[in-house]
Amino acid sequence: MPTSTALPAPAAAEAALASGEAMHALLARLFPICRSLTGNGVRETLAIVREYLPELQVHEVPSGTPALDWMVPAEWNIRDAWVKNAAGERVIDFRAHNLHVLQYSTPVRGWFSRAELEEHLFSLPQQPDLIPYRTSYYQPNWGFCLSHRQRQQLQEEHYEVCIDSTLDESGALTYGELVLPGASEEEVLLSCHCCHPSLANDNLSGLVVAVFLMQELARQPRRYTYRLVLGPGTIGSIVWLSRNPEAVGRIRHGLVLTLLGGPGGFTYKQSRRATAEVDRAAALVLRDSGTTYEVRPWLPYGYDERQYCSPGFNLPVGCLSRTPFGEFAEYHTSADNLSFVQPAQLVESLRLAEDFCAALEANRTYQNLSPYGEPQLGRRGLYKGVGGGQEGADWQMALLWLLNLSDGSHNLLQVAEQSGLGVALLHRAARALETAGLLQPL
Amino acid sequence: MPTSTALPAPAAAEAALASGEAMHALLARLFPICRSLTGNGVRETLAIVREYLPELQVHEVPSGTPALDWMVPAEWNIRDAWVKNAAGERVIDFRAHNLHVLQYSTPVRGWFSRAELEEHLFSLPQQPDLIPYRTSYYQPNWGFCLSHRQRQQLQEEHYEVCIDSTLDESGALTYGELVLPGASEEEVLLSCHCCHPSLANDNLSGLVVAVFLMQELARQPRRYTYRLVLGPGTIGSIVWLSRNPEAVGRIRHGLVLTLLGGPGGFTYKQSRRATAEVDRAAALVLRDSGTTYEVRPWLPYGYDERQYCSPGFNLPVGCLSRTPFGEFAEYHTSADNLSFVQPAQLVESLRLAEDFCAALEANRTYQNLSPYGEPQLGRRGLYKGVGGGQEGADWQMALLWLLNLSDGSHNLLQVAEQSGLGVALLHRAARALETAGLLQPL
Amino acid sequence: MPTSTALPAPAAAEAALASGEAMHALLARLFPICRSLTGNGVRETLAIVREYLPELQVHEVPSGTPALDWMVPAEWNIRDAWVKNAAGERVIDFRAHNLHVLQYSTPVRGWFSRAELEEHLFSLPQQPDLIPYRTSYYQPNWGFCLSHRQRQQLQEEHYEVCIDSTLDESGALTYGELVLPGASEEEVLLSCHCCHPSLANDNLSGLVVAVFLMQELARQPRRYTYRLVLGPGTIGSIVWLSRNPEAVGRIRHGLVLTLLGGPGGFTYKQSRRATAEVDRAAALVLRDSGTTYEVRPWLPYGYDERQYCSPGFNLPVGCLSRTPFGEFAEYHTSADNLSFVQPAQLVESLRLAEDFCAALEANRTYQNLSPYGEPQLGRRGLYKGVGGGQEGADWQMALLWLLNLSDGSHNLLQVAEQSGLGVALLHRAARALETAGLLQPL
Repeated sequence: MPTSTALPAPAAAEAALASGEAMHALLARLFPICRSLTGNGVRETLAIVREYLPELQVHEVPSGTPALDWMVPAEWNIRDAWVKNAAGERVIDFRAHNLHVLQYSTPVRGWFSRAELEEHLFSLPQQPDLIPYRTSYYQPNWGFCLSHRQRQQLQEEHYEVCIDSTLDESGALTYGELVLPGASEEEVLLSCHCCHPSLANDNLSGLVVAVFLMQELARQPRRYTYRLVLGPGTIGSIVWLSRNPEAVGRIRHGLVLTLLGGPGGFTYKQSRRATAEVDRAAALVLRDSGTTYEVRPWLPYGYDERQYCSPGFNLPVGCLSRTPFGEFAEYHTSADNLSFVQPAQLVESLRLAEDFCAALEANRTYQNLSPYGEPQLGRRGLYKGVGGGQEGADWQMALLWLLNLSDGSHNLLQVAEQSGLGVALLHRAARALETAGLLQPL
Repeated sequence: MPTSTALPAPAAAEAALASGEAMHALLARLFPICRSLTGNGVRETLAIVREYLPELQVHEVPSGTPALDWMVPAEWNIRDAWVKNAAGERVIDFRAHNLHVLQYSTPVRGWFSRAELEEHLFSLPQQPDLIPYRTSYYQPNWGFCLSHRQRQQLQEEHYEVCIDSTLDESGALTYGELVLPGASEEEVLLSCHCCHPSLANDNLSGLVVAVFLMQELARQPRRYTYRLVLGPGTIGSIVWLSRNPEAVGRIRHGLVLTLLGGPGGFTYKQSRRATAEVDRAAALVLRDSGTTYEVRPWLPYGYDERQYCSPGFNLPVGCLSRTPFGEFAEYHTSADNLSFVQPAQLVESLRLAEDFCAALEANRTYQNLSPYGEPQLGRRGLYKGVGGGQEGADWQMALLWLLNLSDGSHNLLQVAEQSGLGVALLHRAARALETAGLLQPL
Repeated sequence: MPTSTALPAPAAAEAALASGEAMHALLARLFPICRSLTGNGVRETLAIVREYLPELQVHEVPSGTPALDWMVPAEWNIRDAWVKNAAGERVIDFRAHNLHVLQYSTPVRGWFSRAELEEHLFSLPQQPDLIPYRTSYYQPNWGFCLSHRQRQQLQEEHYEVCIDSTLDESGALTYGELVLPGASEEEVLLSCHCCHPSLANDNLSGLVVAVFLMQELARQPRRYTYRLVLGPGTIGSIVWLSRNPEAVGRIRHGLVLTLLGGPGGFTYKQSRRATAEVDRAAALVLRDSGTTYEVRPWLPYGYDERQYCSPGFNLPVGCLSRTPFGEFAEYHTSADNLSFVQPAQLVESLRLAEDFCAALEANRTYQNLSPYGEPQLGRRGLYKGVGGGQEGADWQMALLWLLNLSDGSHNLLQVAEQSGLGVALLHRAARALETAGLLQPL
């Protein structure tokens, strides 16, 4: 059921193509940057995002700042890293792929026996051509990630190792934030982690969808205020939560956007509340989308919804992705690259995110102003003329369902659930009934 | 599980045969009458019903009377209608079948080109031998319904058209009403639409079942007061609701009876409340019946339950039918005739409606007067003598379930649901326990 | 998932073997005794149990004592019983098998025609080699149970009959009771019927499991007080309930143990409350056990849970068995013998009963003391070091689930239900979090 576009089909397809290419272009530009929890990679990334969303605020939070039960870590930056053989050749080279370095590796320089080096190597015997992505944020360590094939070629007795990184206790954690005010102060939170280096689906895809969604929302009238938070995983949302108690109190709905560029079907993971409005909206939008999807129950493992849904906050924040983490072969490897994420997949994800926001915007509770018997729709031009046939059009049913359930205790999403009718159709029907003086939003 | 009859099986079969024939005879007598929303066809129908139910009240409500959001329409009557060819032969003739005229056709007389006439013709290309049933109650129009084959034979350039109808603004809407007082003022509403012309299943079948059910109820002691309303679809129930606010407040359960003569299995459509006592009673009676059936959720489309279940009233009124409207090929065509409705089908529907009323009558909440441990049934003659075997008869289980759940918060229908035992069996067991001083109705 | 044992696997297997043999030895010792509702067989049985549980109290309640709606019956004892043919040979002999006598047979002595005798014989035509078990506790009668083959050999015209029994109105009903005090006065009730004669599974198996369970519980620290009641079916629990109103008020959970020695899978029958803590604990322990099992809804037929769950008491008492009564061929026949009940089956049942008690002991409601965001587990040594991989160990998930759901409204069993994780694992994780100062029991 088409929902938001008023363009004729060929023009819409052309626009989608253009969007997809524009989205992928942004993703390709961000891909080579070596992001981490902190550091210049995040700053560079957010600077590029500001070209798309000029109002984006970039916050710097000093290392050592307490944040809930945590503390902002030292800032990590890396200039170069390599392992050289006796001949002085780089047999592992950070410049070739930034996944080669264990994230947050401490600086190291020296000769190591192969046995010593092996304890600092990470590879995937089952996927011997791929470089894994590994981190050691909170436990000081150094290491290299490499393909298993490359690892097996390391046959010399000693290697020279260099990791030219810095861990700066007087550095900062960087995150981006953009607020689009709406008619109401009530907020919809959109959150993406931006701490992963050259991984296209995880999570440049979520970031790119969020950026284009905010551009689109900026062009529309908004009932809700929308807030985008782009920060490093876990510590980013913890820092944001610790610094924004008032905004936390205004969040009515929220969505973590991640893994939105791959080829798989969609997955919505429910918030801890399981039946919050965000959960119903997401399930309905997916139901109406015609795409393959799955709704999964809450799990206290995953992305930043873990923090938003911790019991003290218990915010209604779900998580929208395509195939979830760990369930596709490319996950956290060098195969999560620019060809794994396709423009059409990004556009489809963007449309779904737009429909999700549209469903929240549309979700009002109406009161039927003529609740005794059915109002006579015919004389208001809302009913077909010749009766007795079996047309039973969705439009007629949308009118009847809205009138029947608008007793002040069913909102539009609940009407969509009970009737099986699309949210967008019901929204149009509700507006027609409102215009006819038969419904009134509470 | 047999419930209400105490006759031995052959006598019961004979009585059923006689009932079926009597029911079908009434249906056959009513079939040729041209009923509509208003007019003499309804009056003639109700006059025949009064031969069966002499206490039936016939109400006349003047055209133009406001009723909730509606207004009683002008009274429509028709004497004749035809389309003649150049040779003066009737090529469409109301006297051959009263479905030939679009219901509520405005009067018309004159010559029309074939193209002009075509805009006023209704046929069914997919069922080329059947005349469809069509109405235009609230949008002035005229028209003829005919078989597609007949339509294809209209090859002349011009036809003479006559519809000798009247739309009388000073006429009336006619409906029938019968109240059978019971021990309580609380009411069970039974409602049938009686506005369709020569259609046997829709809804002479419902009317005939209701008439014989009221005859049967009149012969029995009644806990509830039963009210039958026979009126035109939609406007009839709206008029009744608008004129009877006090009776509306006394309705505890209600059932729309329709499409009860065809060969299909039974369908119970839940009231808007979904879990009202009427919904549980109907589901249990169907479960216990041994027939094919389906329970469907509430839908704000269908028959007069749409009005009874509008949110302002929200009455617990379900709808009992066999195959629902639009789901059998004969629906709203000339094939819905006297051979489509068979006596045995009418009798089976009547039995089910009787069992439904019996379930409502039987549904009390009991208090176990010996609730600490099981009472010793043996010394009260309610338990088998030699133990250790595996008889586990339903009767014993009925006693145990009633004793166990009669804590004042389970009524008999809930015991039937939880135990899987029949309503009639539990009713007999409850009376045995009441006689033994172990149960007391609240 | 191993729960309670800390022994290495081979030692555990050896201990299990020893337990099974010890359990079966007790069962074999009790098997030949002719127990009934009352009488010396019960006394002898309880005297042997006291060798295992020296603190067991043996109560004698005089015949004629009122108990709820019942009265303690006359005490029944039997010395001998036989049917002799004309040659004076015992063709049915109580000394060969105590099932041969209808329980509670009144004394009889004399010659009977075969037709007269036949009215007092019970056999199983479908299982012609087995002796059935039959009773006539509350309706005076006498009779013999015998294999159908044996019955068919009775071809003489007259037989001499002797049942040398006594029904003593000044006798008593005997039951056993053992209380193991815990930290709290709140009680867990364990109940077994001990009224059946030589039937091994029904219910010496339950009794033996209960005896060994109480021995095990006696060796452990206990949060709850545990009470074991060993009495005759129905009247035993009724007598106990009538005499212990204060203890009744302290029962928080209860389990009837029966039919625990056969080869079938486990069956848990829910209490009348259906979702009581006992019901959740039993379902989870079965789910975690890796064995075949079934959870069945409440039914007011079965064992002493009928009395505990009568509506006046409505205690949260379920019933744990293997294949339920009446669903295995050996039920209530001479085939329910010492070879039907195997040591390994008894041990498996004992383990399950122990895990059930452990689940109740473990079930606390915790409060997360660091509920805003996730607490940083890493610095408390509760989290793995190198991230990015997909280990997702159950231990980590147990920590996360407990932290996430410990908002004061989920107890540990509910966390086990929602997470799918084992009760024992969650219990260990909860203690680790408590030690780390992150959780506190309410």
